[in-house]
Amino acid sequence: MLNVALVGAGRIGKVHAAIVARHPTASLHSVVDVCEQAARTLAAAHGARTCTISEALSDPNVDAVLIASATDTHADLIERAAEAGKKIFCEKPIDLQIDRVRACLATVSAQGATLMVGFNRRFDRHIRGLRAAFKAGEVGKAETLLIISRDPAPPPLAYVQASGGLFRDMTIHDIDTARWILGEEPRALQAIGRSCVDHNFRLAGDIDTALLTLEFPSGAVATIANSRRSGYGYDQRIELHGADGLLQVGNVLESTVVRTGAAGSHSAKPVHFFLERYAEAYAAQWDYFVGVCEGKNEPSPGGLDGERALAIANAANDAMETGHRVPLAW
Amino acid sequence: MLNVALVGAGRIGKVHAAIVARHPTASLHSVVDVCEQAARTLAAAHGARTCTISEALSDPNVDAVLIASATDTHADLIERAAEAGKKIFCEKPIDLQIDRVRACLATVSAQGATLMVGFNRRFDRHIRGLRAAFKAGEVGKAETLLIISRDPAPPPLAYVQASGGLFRDMTIHDIDTARWILGEEPRALQAIGRSCVDHNFRLAGDIDTALLTLEFPSGAVATIANSRRSGYGYDQRIELHGADGLLQVGNVLESTVVRTGAAGSHSAKPVHFFLERYAEAYAAQWDYFVGVCEGKNEPSPGGLDGERALAIANAANDAMETGHRVPLAW
Amino acid sequence: MLNVALVGAGRIGKVHAAIVARHPTASLHSVVDVCEQAARTLAAAHGARTCTISEALSDPNVDAVLIASATDTHADLIERAAEAGKKIFCEKPIDLQIDRVRACLATVSAQGATLMVGFNRRFDRHIRGLRAAFKAGEVGKAETLLIISRDPAPPPLAYVQASGGLFRDMTIHDIDTARWILGEEPRALQAIGRSCVDHNFRLAGDIDTALLTLEFPSGAVATIANSRRSGYGYDQRIELHGADGLLQVGNVLESTVVRTGAAGSHSAKPVHFFLERYAEAYAAQWDYFVGVCEGKNEPSPGGLDGERALAIANAANDAMETGHRVPLAW
Amino acid sequence: MLNVALVGAGRIGKVHAAIVARHPTASLHSVVDVCEQAARTLAAAHGARTCTISEALSDPNVDAVLIASATDTHADLIERAAEAGKKIFCEKPIDLQIDRVRACLATVSAQGATLMVGFNRRFDRHIRGLRAAFKAGEVGKAETLLIISRDPAPPPLAYVQASGGLFRDMTIHDIDTARWILGEEPRALQAIGRSCVDHNFRLAGDIDTALLTLEFPSGAVATIANSRRSGYGYDQRIELHGADGLLQVGNVLESTVVRTGAAGSHSAKPVHFFLERYAEAYAAQWDYFVGVCEGKNEPSPGGLDGERALAIANAANDAMETGHRVPLAW
Repeated sequence: MLNVALVGAGRIGKVHAAIVARHPTASLHSVVDVCEQAARTLAAAHGARTCTISEALSDPNVDAVLIASATDTHADLIERAAEAGKKIFCEKPIDLQIDRVRACLATVSAQGATLMVGFNRRFDRHIRGLRAAFKAGEVGKAETLLIISRDPAPPPLAYVQASGGLFRDMTIHDIDTARWILGEEPRALQAIGRSCVDHNFRLAGDIDTALLTLEFPSGAVATIANSRRSGYGYDQRIELHGADGLLQVGNVLESTVVRTGAAGSHSAKPVHFFLERYAEAYAAQWDYFVGVCEGKNEPSPGGLDGERALAIANAANDAMETGHRVPLAW
Repeated sequence: MLNVALVGAGRIGKVHAAIVARHPTASLHSVVDVCEQAARTLAAAHGARTCTISEALSDPNVDAVLIASATDTHADLIERAAEAGKKIFCEKPIDLQIDRVRACLATVSAQGATLMVGFNRRFDRHIRGLRAAFKAGEVGKAETLLIISRDPAPPPLAYVQASGGLFRDMTIHDIDTARWILGEEPRALQAIGRSCVDHNFRLAGDIDTALLTLEFPSGAVATIANSRRSGYGYDQRIELHGADGLLQVGNVLESTVVRTGAAGSHSAKPVHFFLERYAEAYAAQWDYFVGVCEGKNEPSPGGLDGERALAIANAANDAMETGHRVPLAW
Repeated sequence: MLNVALVGAGRIGKVHAAIVARHPTASLHSVVDVCEQAARTLAAAHGARTCTISEALSDPNVDAVLIASATDTHADLIERAAEAGKKIFCEKPIDLQIDRVRACLATVSAQGATLMVGFNRRFDRHIRGLRAAFKAGEVGKAETLLIISRDPAPPPLAYVQASGGLFRDMTIHDIDTARWILGEEPRALQAIGRSCVDHNFRLAGDIDTALLTLEFPSGAVATIANSRRSGYGYDQRIELHGADGLLQVGNVLESTVVRTGAAGSHSAKPVHFFLERYAEAYAAQWDYFVGVCEGKNEPSPGGLDGERALAIANAANDAMETGHRVPLAW
Repeated sequence: MLNVALVGAGRIGKVHAAIVARHPTASLHSVVDVCEQAARTLAAAHGARTCTISEALSDPNVDAVLIASATDTHADLIERAAEAGKKIFCEKPIDLQIDRVRACLATVSAQGATLMVGFNRRFDRHIRGLRAAFKAGEVGKAETLLIISRDPAPPPLAYVQASGGLFRDMTIHDIDTARWILGEEPRALQAIGRSCVDHNFRLAGDIDTALLTLEFPSGAVATIANSRRSGYGYDQRIELHGADGLLQVGNVLESTVVRTGAAGSHSAKPVHFFLERYAEAYAAQWDYFVGVCEGKNEPSPGGLDGERALAIANAANDAMETGHRVPLAW
């Protein structure tokens, strides 16, 4: 049994707690949260205890730390967990500042710690299916990759202000997906950003609509289209055009019911948001991490994936501001 | 050039006239109609003349007769055209009375005449694709065939009264399709009929909704579901379940436009009716008939197909009335 | 907390055990199975104990009995549980003999016991969506209902021999679905059965392919098309044609990935079988039953639903043998 | 009757000839081609005569000139036809050099001539449906427009060498579509080009894969993804994301047949190329032009549309070479 201390009892913390509790070879040992009441309620629901982070890290019965707290606590928690010899699963991002990410990863490396970062799309059954088909050569050499990723509705102003901006908060997922599907690092990018959805984004100096174009050494070009508001649920589609054809991942719909009448056919919209669309992916991600801790899997996505995606997101901000193609060197 | 005399300048006659006029090796020679004005207008639109049926049949320049007049004139016209040595294309049905059909076909046979009957579905690209895939063994031995055929809206009372009833007017198409796809004759059937769509059908002693089940010697069972009113255009779907899988023909939609919003996705309904859905099929059917006249194709569907489909429709009336399985012998 | 004794540690028992264990207001108290080893393994996986059925029924801490054992034990277990004052959830069928079912339900009634029967489709999100749309009047009065239900591959001979035949084992689900969607009892039926899939069915005197037609007092007609072998996963589709349009429930596919190349487009087949397709439905069914035990929901489907579906399945056997329409009286 | 002289008896000329011949209020008067044999064959097929361009332009019976000859003859022919007082329909482009286009349009304007340019997509039923829905406000304010346009297979080297390059030959259609759907002129663009499909493009100094991003004053951004080789037919899809939802135009498939078996579902690929996909659009475009000649419609797309699309294509070449955002001023 892998005994897990969960840090963060908020929305995503609750998702992780239920998955850990249900896993056949993992156990929710303890819940840590600055809000003690939240920690107690979540711990009670799964028969776990509450404790401070110091207690969790010094408890020899705790094997792994699952970090699902506020973004600005991630890097510190990773370093402390690494130093305490715990296995680490951390929700993205490691940090919003690239230097802080690098310092953190240096500590992880110095400690020889195991770190996995939560880019949940890598564990989505559908997206994995597309990647597997591509890797199996079903469409030949990659030429253009298109990732459409739209949230159902804009987040509140407070979220926007703490988010680090659209590229680092939202696009970062799609950047990781593009790198992971194509299996290479982009060498240049162009970006366009707009604030057309919601007044809050302008207030926060952020954008809500973006278009990013990544050029890869193989000749492949990836386009990412983002919006903070689809108006119709979580729009998560990918298509990869290769030398021998096209691979597409469509949306997962709320239902298969179709009604046809004089005005045409009506079918369901995509499922609402990431908790619905990636429910299975969160469980698969956790199962993979348990395999990492059991020595069966390599930690992937790892710290370097988090760092690279952030560096690309930062370059996207530059490209958007200048209107120029920004080269990327690794 | 195949010189064609068209009998009937109504709705379907106009469709045929345009197709004949456009065909590279056929020519619309003349138009015959009891309503002289209708004949004149249609002839003028395609540079043809008008004449009486007697004139057309005695004109040595007329090679073929295309019968698209009222149902109760078909058998007489076929016989006269056969005796005049013309090639014959006749819209379905040959007649509503099986004895009259048989007498007519005896004359055709005695004259050695060429007769083709208009079951347009046999020339639909999609239905042909399903049949070709089946014949190529793509789903193995046929087990169940399902034909859904629904008109968009009920016809007027006068049409219903002259139609011969739903089985002989509408289902007869689907009966032919089932025989043609499976390539065998049914040996028994069951039928259920309802009058739930429109008051006119009850007035006329007819039904507007039906379910027919045909058993075939190979073990395959075909189900035909009919309605005089879909409420959403022309519903023309077929599926064939075989030992190795499923073949389906879907509806042809008015447009590929899809709109997705908070209430879900909206797409187009099927095209309105047979003139839209089978526009291409009518042209392909005519092209095939020209090939028959040029000695390249066998006349198919021929007179026997018309006779068999009518006999099965008659048996369906019996089965509906008794609630019993009616055996069919050939 | 609702303490549950599970009887039956086989395939479906394991599904139920995991659902009970995960339910927020139910608890898996004990597992009963004639195979002690199976009971022990399943109980251990969920922190429950093992015991005999007598011990479970006499234990005042046990609130409910979940019957997932062999079919021929259901009626006895229901009666004993009813007499012991336990709430009862029983997998379908209650029994294969209608007299035994009636006797069992008389006991349930005499004891005032709570009984719910496992027709899982009633809890499928998609099928519920179709029924809700129909009940909301979205397609008007029902005219024809079509239920296609095909298993992926035939079961072993031993299963077939104990199954009670296709109508009572498999079609019974679709019969319940038709009754439940339309909200009325059929008054006549016709049936056709074939043994074309697998030699085992002939050996067992059973059929593997069937077509059932049910006539309802409202004028609606339902057709059920069954096969023991689709060749492409679990084919579970429903369509309801009403006065104002069509409602359809499609298959749930293994993935949304589509590959398009020179040979056309390739997409995933339906999910494999009932454990995949109805995984959510099993959980929703259990949640509903817990609500029944907590006094929030009426037990539905109840014993009478089980009895009616069985009576209709029996009549289907008669109709198949005679080729005649069989009237049904309630 | 509108008497039409067709210039050009090649592939697209044949398409136009058949459409003109079939049109109820137009007539194919004469065919002009430098290859006399081609002109004679095409004229004979439709009962027209052959003549020289001078004869056609000086013939008072000729009302309109349909220019479907080689690109480098378009501007001269337009000018001569304008001076001769003929109505003009010209296939795109007017010329590959923007200065030549401007000079030609000055002549058209000076003569007060009627000129319509052949951007066939504007007459596609599906694309018109999307635009109409957008104009009707069905998805609110436009935010992102995505146009995917891929030819089935690369053209021969000779075609590439005379084409003017991908942006001016192929993308120009999509540029016109974007301008037409959004109803505004872009004010900046970025472009990426690749030669990854076919050696011929490198030989000709051309690209075969491109990504173009257009920024519009309203805030909308349009992305055009082109390839000279889809590998699966003519890929012509558009989606427009607006404030209130998404509009999509999908591909038109070769057939509605779907086969499902153990390996999944197989459906048809898109129709092969523009002659199939836009067959209806060519007829609708011609019908619209006849309406222009009859004073019922405004000429649209007109000369300015041809000029603007070319100017944008030229800017795309600049943007591709520099990697910079290129501003556009009108």
